[in-house]
Amino acid sequence: MPMRGRFIVLEGGEGAGKSGAIAALRADFARDGLDLVTTREPGGTPEGAALRRLLLAETTHDWTSTAELLLMTADRAQHVERVIRPALTAGRIVVSDRYVSSTLAYQGAGRGLDADLILDLHSRAIRDLWPDLTVVLDVPPEIGLARSQARLGNAGIDEGRFEGLDLDFHRRVRQSFLDQAAAAGRHGVVIDASRDKATVEAAVIAAVRAAVG
Amino acid sequence: MPMRGRFIVLEGGEGAGKSGAIAALRADFARDGLDLVTTREPGGTPEGAALRRLLLAETTHDWTSTAELLLMTADRAQHVERVIRPALTAGRIVVSDRYVSSTLAYQGAGRGLDADLILDLHSRAIRDLWPDLTVVLDVPPEIGLARSQARLGNAGIDEGRFEGLDLDFHRRVRQSFLDQAAAAGRHGVVIDASRDKATVEAAVIAAVRAAVG
Ligand SMILES: Nc1ncnc2c1ncn2[C@@H]1O[C@H](COP(=O)(O)OP(=O)(O)OP(=O)(O)O)[C@@H](O)[C@H]1O
Ligand SMILES: Nc1ncnc2c1ncn2[C@@H]1O[C@H](COP(=O)(O)OP(=O)(O)OP(=O)(O)O)[C@@H](O)[C@H]1O
Ligand SMILES: [Mg+2]
Ligand SMILES: [Mg+2]
Repeated sequence: MPMRGRFIVLEGGEGAGKSGAIAALRADFARDGLDLVTTREPGGTPEGAALRRLLLAETTHDWTSTAELLLMTADRAQHVERVIRPALTAGRIVVSDRYVSSTLAYQGAGRGLDADLILDLHSRAIRDLWPDLTVVLDVPPEIGLARSQARLGNAGIDEGRFEGLDLDFHRRVRQSFLDQAAAAGRHGVVIDASRDKATVEAAVIAAVRAAVG
Repeated sequence: MPMRGRFIVLEGGEGAGKSGAIAALRADFARDGLDLVTTREPGGTPEGAALRRLLLAETTHDWTSTAELLLMTADRAQHVERVIRPALTAGRIVVSDRYVSSTLAYQGAGRGLDADLILDLHSRAIRDLWPDLTVVLDVPPEIGLARSQARLGNAGIDEGRFEGLDLDFHRRVRQSFLDQAAAAGRHGVVIDASRDKATVEAAVIAAVRAAVG
């Protein structure tokens, strides 16, 4: 039983299995009577949800990469102060679907924005609220995108702006997540997410339990 | 006749007369066959206009001051790269209704955000595109707000979020514009905008003509 809040982040490319793993985590902790605070980016606050619609849905919009970075960071600042920090202060376990590492991967490695600029911006925007653990669900982009497209096809919606980018982009994103996990020491873990769903979810649960235990 | 583009910014509190002065500038330069590029913040791009609606209209939204600053800066980065810099490169005279000095006044002096944070953020976001001249229309907030409210009352709309703030807030904003103009040397000028409209507009035209001449 944790004596203080813990901040866990799930990361990985499209279709890696983040949303499913978070649902599995919720169910697993619920069996112990522990109610996880699960949240996501972009869009973890009402304000961020409006921003998410602006960013993902408006296909006629053509934000510069710097502007896109600033919008993502605004969403994150809002998310940290309104949701994550208050929950941690209350002793809760918070699990977020994406966080700063996604920005380093997509806007940094993916779009080529300077990593120092991103980190600079964030150390002010999140007031140094770094995760206790980041779990990277690692999968080749070909597999993840196929999973993601199957799902989008079924639902008949497409809010995917990143899905459309080329494979090279997604390979840079994947490598960035791996590099970040390697650099994070005990604060990062990589899980092979090309395996079947149940195996991946069990591995995520074990990693998170080890971190909050 | 300018040989290169010039970047002019009109500043001042609500109801100072910025929009009217910009219309007067347009008309005056048009008489010489010069077509000014007039633009405004927030909302000088299609993307920024969507963001402006998000920021000004959604009264149920409660952005943190850091998030608000990041959104304003995103709008500005977009505005600089898509509108202002291309026009200057093409040799045009650009006149913007508000720019960085408004952020220093409203988010800095008004809401209490650190001026260094704001400047830091901007030197990256605008890639050091500072105005050739900033014209501050100076008016006591009581007068400006009354003008502004009369206009809003007539139009029957209210996208005013700042109008609702207390007089102390607007006094800090006014003082910040004065301080910034004083610090800007030949790049800043203050015009007493409590005088009648025609007098104020003539003074703005003279100041801008002197700067681009
Ligand atoms: N290990 C797996 N094997 C096969 N299919 C999977 C696996 N994990 C998830 N899926 C399926 O892939 C799709 C995407 O999964 P999920 O939504 O959990 O991924 P995600 O990482 O949240 O993606 P996104 O970044 O697009 O939100 C879903 O339809 C899901 O059922
Ligand atoms: N010198 C003046 N004397 C009296 N009324 C004025 C004067 N200048 C402008 N006004 C009136 O005050 C109102 C606000 O002017 P204007 O819209 O130009 O100000 P603004 O600085 O652009 O305000 P905002 O920041 O709200 O956009 C208008 O109705 C305008 O006609
Ligand atoms: Mg998901
Ligand atoms: Mg105006």
